Parts: sequence; structure tokens; C-alpha cells
Amino acid sequence: MLIRRLAVIGVGLIGGSLALALREAGAVGEVVGCGRGRPNLDKAVELGVIDRYSHDVGEAVEGADMVFLAVPLGAMAQAFEAMRGHLAPDAVITDGGSTKGSVVEDAIRAFGEAPPNLVPGHPIAGTEHSGVEAAFPTLYRNRRVILTPLSKTDPGALARVDAMWRLCGAEVTHMEVEHHDEVLAATSHLPHMLAFSLVDALAQMKENDEIFRYAAGGFRDFTRIASSSPVMWRDICLANRKALGMMLDCFAEELTDLARILREGDGDRLLEIFERAKAARDRFIDGV
Amino acid sequence: MLIRRLAVIGVGLIGGSLALALREAGAVGEVVGCGRGRPNLDKAVELGVIDRYSHDVGEAVEGADMVFLAVPLGAMAQAFEAMRGHLAPDAVITDGGSTKGSVVEDAIRAFGEAPPNLVPGHPIAGTEHSGVEAAFPTLYRNRRVILTPLSKTDPGALARVDAMWRLCGAEVTHMEVEHHDEVLAATSHLPHMLAFSLVDALAQMKENDEIFRYAAGGFRDFTRIASSSPVMWRDICLANRKALGMMLDCFAEELTDLARILREGDGDRLLEIFERAKAARDRFIDGV
Repeated sequence: MLIRRLAVIGVGLIGGSLALALREAGAVGEVVGCGRGRPNLDKAVELGVIDRYSHDVGEAVEGADMVFLAVPLGAMAQAFEAMRGHLAPDAVITDGGSTKGSVVEDAIRAFGEAPPNLVPGHPIAGTEHSGVEAAFPTLYRNRRVILTPLSKTDPGALARVDAMWRLCGAEVTHMEVEHHDEVLAATSHLPHMLAFSLVDALAQMKENDEIFRYAAGGFRDFTRIASSSPVMWRDICLANRKALGMMLDCFAEELTDLARILREGDGDRLLEIFERAKAARDRFIDGV
Repeated sequence: MLIRRLAVIGVGLIGGSLALALREAGAVGEVVGCGRGRPNLDKAVELGVIDRYSHDVGEAVEGADMVFLAVPLGAMAQAFEAMRGHLAPDAVITDGGSTKGSVVEDAIRAFGEAPPNLVPGHPIAGTEHSGVEAAFPTLYRNRRVILTPLSKTDPGALARVDAMWRLCGAEVTHMEVEHHDEVLAATSHLPHMLAFSLVDALAQMKENDEIFRYAAGGFRDFTRIASSSPVMWRDICLANRKALGMMLDCFAEELTDLARILREGDGDRLLEIFERAKAARDRFIDGV
């Protein structure tokens, strides 16, 4: 059995689905949950996601050989602090946070340096639902998981986390922390920022109800991500503020250029941009 | 019968669907098509969309009491020029262009002034397909059509175009030309510009194939409109360059502000923006 005892800190969609997938794969002995809300944890026991739980992180990680942190990014630092001194010597720590630089910084702040058994990770999966009742064992099947080991990360710890995700059906790749944060800023965090700020800008215009009334199907698709959790996205954006701030500045410049091209009536330049974009999207998105 | 003879200039999804809807409503006698491609026009006759056709606009509008222009925005000026001197005295002219200021300007340029029988219009409907084979009679059912009559527009002409769209099942509203172009710049043209330019920006980054590989579902939705026709969107953006240029400048400023808020780590401001956006989207989009 790959994991003797798994501690899941934060038992929601992400943490719960990992536990269910590992159980289905016969890869885990005991699962200990940790969280604040008793009803959610009771539900998790009832659904067979976890075997037992504690509200205390230190207690929950006691004796675990795999610790999975699935708390919001804003709660990572506190969770690392709370597990210090309670971890078993062979415990591997990994997480599901959407940014990796901030998680590594939180760990360094709590432990003095990044623990060799820490393997920062990011499963690129999710649904619009949250909470343990939304968890299901196939959430990670055929989805990508990015692991961002540090130079001092123990190869054995990395191999165990790698194996854990593969048993869930995921496709695992490794990446540098900074590179991960740049790639995700581009493909996920920036689009969310754009959707949120566009909808907000329109909502603040005069006669905004009329504006939304004439919004067609394209607008619905384009702004769907603006219906995501504001708290979660505040945390993600703050956690990745360096890479994301750079992307925002670049993109703002690009828009200013575009406004100039438009005013100059330069149809050839516009067509060139639109054609390159369509080709890229059709090739990379629909072609996959 | 509302329309004795309908001339459809540009027999594709938009023009073809109008003809089919009016036929189904028993509201039109004869339908004359006009276009450049013989195979498409032969197909239109075969499908019963039009009764006959001409490649010459002047010939096609001869004797028609309703003329519907469904050519690309870049071809409107030429179409107006070509029909001058061939229109019946009772002919009402309307169109399906996505911007209205440019169409009115094209008409003024061709006729010296905006003809009293011109009723600029914009059916907010479409699919990802094009050509007459994509046309179907219910395209406009429960969709919005915006008419933008001018101060000199004949009330009788307006009433006829209004009635025509209602017979197709559409919900018709009237708006000032400039207001239409601003509303559509906000809800349609700006989102398309953002999607095209975001995908293009990512496509030009180093290791862009890797970036797209890690794009999740949200990115797919957000950038779907970047797979739209580059030529059509070049025409639309150029035609609405004034309103759209202003929107782009405003939005670029907003992004620069957002980058600053992010760098300052102002989580409260971020949360405020995200919450306002989510509330607006949930209320206006999903609530409708």
C-alpha cells in the first residue's frame, strides 16, 4: 500500500476527491481529516471519504506518512505553523494550491527552510461546486497535475507524490516553481482578472441593466469565470501577485496598442492579430 | 401579406434565416436573392430560401418593397451605391449589421442623405456556422432585434420593419444609433478584442505550446470567441472604432489600476471588485 495514513487538511472537493480516488485504487490505509466545520467533517465520515477527524492540524498529521494540504491559499501559512513538531519523520507533505511560490514561502516562514519532504503540487482540476459532498473519485482522471519540487526536495518524497497522483489517473509533470506561477498567471489568473474586471466595469456603467440585456452568447461564455468564488480568487491573485502583476501590465500595454491600431484604422494589423489568435486557439484548444 | 417582394442582399445565415422565417409566417410573396457566388445562390433556390437571384444589386432590388442588407459591414457602402436609382418608391431598406453608425454613414455617402425609408437594424442572433445551408427559420425566435431609426426615418417604414421582425418571433427594441454602438462595444466587441488579443499574446510567448497545454476549462470558455471569423471581426471593430477605442482605453486604465492594487496587496479592494462582478453576472446573465 502506497500510503499508510493520509492526513487531509481541508476536506472539500479537492481533498475529498483525492481521498476517494486513493481509496478506490486501494492505495491508502487510513484517512484522517482536518477542518473547522463539524457538519462537513461528519458528512465526510458518513460518505466514507475520511475515517476520522480532528479540528487540530497537529493532531491530524500525527503518524501520517502523507499530508495533503487542501486549504485556501490564505490559510496555508497557518496550517504549516500548526503541523510543525507533529510530523512523523517519514511524512511527505504536499498540497493542491493554485500558486506555488506563495506556498513555498509560507513553508519557509513556518519551518525556517523548505522541508526536504515538501513536494509542492497543483492538480489542474475542479468543478463549480465545493465542499466534501461535491467530491468524487474520478475528478483527477486524465487531468494534469504539476509538481514543483525544489532543489533540496528529497527524490523519494517526490517519487511518492508522483505515484500518488498517477494512481488517481492524473498525468503528472514537473516544473520550476516560478515557471508554474507564470504559466498559470497566463492561462488562468489573468483570464479570471479580465473577466471579473470587465463585468465589474460594465456593471458600473450607467444603464448597466440594459447593457447586460443585450449581451449575447459569446459574452456568457467569456464571463462565465466571473461567477467563480471571489474569496478564493482574491487569495490566488494576491498569492501570485508578482507574476500576475507583470502579466496585467503587459496586457494593458497591448490593449493600448490595440486602441491605437483601431484609431489608425489599420485593418491589416487587426486581421493579422485576429488570424494568429484564431489559429492558436483552434490548434491548441480544440485540437487537444 | 406584409411583404410583396423581399430582396435579400447577401444570402447566408442571417439573410437566409430571415427569408425562411417570413415564409413560414406566410408574410412574404416573392424572395429575390443577391450575392456573388453562384453555388451558394443555387443552393438557396434549391433549399427554398429564395425564389430567384441576381448577381446585380440594382437588378435584385427592382420592384422590392423590402430590402434586407445582410452583407459584411465592409461591403455595405458598395451595396448602397449599387441600389441607388433602382429602388421602388415604397421600398423600405433595413440591414443586419453589427454596428449602426457605420451603416448610416455608408448610406449617407451613397444617397447624399439618409433615406427616410432606411431603418438600420441589428438582430442579436447567430451561430458558429455561416452560409445559406446554416440558415433556419427559428434563428430569431425569442432573440432581440435592435432598430435604430434616425430622426428623419419615416414612421411607416419603421412600423413595417418592426412588424417583420416580430413575425419572426423576435423581441424588437428601438435605440439611438450611438447608444447601440456603445452597448455593443461593451458587451460584444470589447470581449472579442480581449479574447483575440489574450490568445495572441499567449501564442507569442516562449514555450507557448506548454502554456496552452495547461489551460483549463475556464480558459476554453473565456477564449471561445477567439475562434470567430477574423475577417468579420476586423470589419466590425473598424466599423465601430470610435466607441470601441474608447472602451479599450478605459479598460486598459482599469487593468493598470488593478495591477497597482495587486502590487499593493490590497485584498479588500480585490474582493470588492470580484464580489461586485460575480453579483452582476449571476444576476444579469444566469438570472435571465
